[in-house]
Amino acid sequence: MSFEIDTRVLKNAVQLTTNAVSKKTANPILKGIKLAVEDDELHIYATDLQTGFHKWLKVKDSDENFSTVVEQTIFLEILSNLTSDTITITLDGVLKISGGNSVFRLPTMDPDEFPSLAFDVTGNSISLDRTIITNMIDKVIFCALKDSSSLSRNLNAVYWDFRQGGFLNLVATDSYRLALSESKLEDDNVLSPFLLSLKSMDELKTILSAAKTEKIKVVQSGSQVLFDFEEDNNQLIFNVIDAEFPNYLGIIPQSFITKIKAKTSEFLAIMKRMSITAGSEEYTLLNIEDGRIQFYASSPDVGEAKEEIDVEQEGRNLEIAYSPRYFREALERIETVEFEFDISDEEKPTILKPVEDNSYMFIIMPKRKS
Amino acid sequence: MSFEIDTRVLKNAVQLTTNAVSKKTANPILKGIKLAVEDDELHIYATDLQTGFHKWLKVKDSDENFSTVVEQTIFLEILSNLTSDTITITLDGVLKISGGNSVFRLPTMDPDEFPSLAFDVTGNSISLDRTIITNMIDKVIFCALKDSSSLSRNLNAVYWDFRQGGFLNLVATDSYRLALSESKLEDDNVLSPFLLSLKSMDELKTILSAAKTEKIKVVQSGSQVLFDFEEDNNQLIFNVIDAEFPNYLGIIPQSFITKIKAKTSEFLAIMKRMSITAGSEEYTLLNIEDGRIQFYASSPDVGEAKEEIDVEQEGRNLEIAYSPRYFREALERIETVEFEFDISDEEKPTILKPVEDNSYMFIIMPKRKS
Repeated sequence: MSFEIDTRVLKNAVQLTTNAVSKKTANPILKGIKLAVEDDELHIYATDLQTGFHKWLKVKDSDENFSTVVEQTIFLEILSNLTSDTITITLDGVLKISGGNSVFRLPTMDPDEFPSLAFDVTGNSISLDRTIITNMIDKVIFCALKDSSSLSRNLNAVYWDFRQGGFLNLVATDSYRLALSESKLEDDNVLSPFLLSLKSMDELKTILSAAKTEKIKVVQSGSQVLFDFEEDNNQLIFNVIDAEFPNYLGIIPQSFITKIKAKTSEFLAIMKRMSITAGSEEYTLLNIEDGRIQFYASSPDVGEAKEEIDVEQEGRNLEIAYSPRYFREALERIETVEFEFDISDEEKPTILKPVEDNSYMFIIMPKRKS
Repeated sequence: MSFEIDTRVLKNAVQLTTNAVSKKTANPILKGIKLAVEDDELHIYATDLQTGFHKWLKVKDSDENFSTVVEQTIFLEILSNLTSDTITITLDGVLKISGGNSVFRLPTMDPDEFPSLAFDVTGNSISLDRTIITNMIDKVIFCALKDSSSLSRNLNAVYWDFRQGGFLNLVATDSYRLALSESKLEDDNVLSPFLLSLKSMDELKTILSAAKTEKIKVVQSGSQVLFDFEEDNNQLIFNVIDAEFPNYLGIIPQSFITKIKAKTSEFLAIMKRMSITAGSEEYTLLNIEDGRIQFYASSPDVGEAKEEIDVEQEGRNLEIAYSPRYFREALERIETVEFEFDISDEEKPTILKPVEDNSYMFIIMPKRKS
């Protein structure tokens, strides 16, 4: 039971499983990847029970079908350190990896205990453009709640909202801010909205960044979603999060007392400087008056910072406070030279968005004035 | 009390103090840097009571001499985020930093409470070549004991051993291994040997890597050593460690039962692979027999690795065990295509050194065979 394979090809494939295997788990088999040889193809499987990854590669001189499970970290470390171009892998109680003068023998686990990654591929499906979806994810993922141990599992996630007319909204929020990215799909099919955990999203990002497939097929079946990267010979299978996402459309303010237009990079630099003295309260006061904004942030230990710029202002003068970090992290994702921010009230959500581009926006809550 | 200065020049200067200020200290003034304006020059001082740093810069439009102390981290963060080319710094109760439309006000500390960095510059002195000394430090510093809280303060250090005939030996050891780098100085003066803490050495490395001064003057005075970077307008003042360094010359083995010559990069790759399965015991067995070495490392969880190579052997066959990490970290610093390792006994120190180059060597203790 053995086969031969290009060392680098296998290393790159195993590297893609890094986020899909469980790092901390009481169940050792979830630290492993399943290797299954079937008719000159090696299938690699990894799962943490929420995200499943499946990839297949051509192998040479395969004499017999077999499957086994080895620990992912060790296997990858060995592949990364072998200097021979091709290696021979043999199952013989242990997994033997031979390349050049090196021979490794790894303990194996029972492949029958490895969780099944079966997926019903007959569900409803659409096609997504890789470049567009990668960009949409980058726009929203930073707003998701980071803490995976929180009770708010629905916020430690990104919401995929497929809407009538062939639109997809990606949405993420940590309840203090929200990011929304919209695009028109080429496909007229509509999937039901679903929630993917932040960990699933991170794995999706990894696979997207290494992918060459231009059109990714997304298939929905019950509580599972499959992303099929046809030209890369790999698939991701996600268990969606069984929880309600907040009614985000109801949060987006519709009327505004003041609208500001300003230079994105200049505003970003100011917010970075305000962060320095804003302290752990993350409090920066903006005094908006007659086309001019005065910024002020101070904390007793660190000192204070003041700054002034000219902007285009519509609507009334006011004082309003924000977290400079929330402002900054949104501005870092705005690609236009100018951006606008639209204030509905001192205590209601503010919209930040690129000028003359409605495909993405950020909503941040002002700070209560101290 | 104000002056004007180029933002980047000041930022780069303050950056150099990063390792010299104390990060964890009950005494807040040690987190600060002292700024002293004297006749169109700004002097910057930093110290953690063991390492002192002093640099001076030209300033413009200085109206009056003054000195003050501000927290280093905040000051550097502000300088890094200001976008204007020049800034004006004013002392007026607080330290005011103005650039473009930004104004920062920082709390200050009493400059009279800042530790003095006085140094008697009339001591014995020598001149060191920057490139040579940088290379020597890189060869030995990794062998110093990392733990600064250890009772063995003399090992959490690098030993500067100036020897008759104009030689300098740099030596570091953690008591399991030792690195020695030697060079002939152009100077005939001889300083007394001294010990610099690892933290002092790290600061010296930082300053060396940013320096343009080719010939660094080293002055010794009592328990202090001054490194003068004349063309960079900066100085480092070290308090030497008041402890004995082990008699390292007595540790270097003089007679050998077996000498091996092998390819450095090939041996390094093998030791990296052995590290994977050597486990936390860091145990790799070498079976040296008739010009051939068999390597073997195993641990129950991870599996086992075997390898064989041909080498040039002189002396008798034997089995000997090493930490693959110690071997690897030494080999990574050997610059010749081939290296030799000279075994004095299964339980006595082994020498690793470049072939036909006696300017540096590494000594590692074999592992007791299990």
